[in-house]
Amino acid sequence: KGPALRGSALELRCQCLSTHSRFIHPKFIRNVNLTPSGPHCKNVEVIATLADGREVCLDPAAPWVKLIIKAILDK
Amino acid sequence: KGPALRGSALELRCQCLSTHSRFIHPKFIRNVNLTPSGPHCKNVEVIATLADGREVCLDPAAPWVKLIIKAILDK
Repeated sequence: KGPALRGSALELRCQCLSTHSRFIHPKFIRNVNLTPSGPHCKNVEVIATLADGREVCLDPAAPWVKLIIKAILDK
Repeated sequence: KGPALRGSALELRCQCLSTHSRFIHPKFIRNVNLTPSGPHCKNVEVIATLADGREVCLDPAAPWVKLIIKAILDK
């Protein structure tokens, strides 16, 4: 099972309990949701929805995560 | 009313009919959803959910959009 993730439409606290550290190829990523840190959670949260529908928390500080986001935008 | 946006959980076509060109301050952005181009839609789609719950399509090529995404990740 991937890193634990609490999910609801409007989350009033952190949604990611841990992050997936291994590289995920962009072709397996359906979309990426970025939630800035805020009163609800002190962490920036990056949640990728994979092609198979699973949601995975990614580390916003990981270089490969930043590269994937850049690649998505620049495509 | 913001740029037209068709919405559903799993969208099988483009969700953005147009994009919001004016700068939006990050403090008004609750989260940002990035959808890579794919068979469902040839455009990369960047959809921001604002603090008031409205969803707005942003232009992935606009420098200020890239800066906001970078700022969110780097915070």
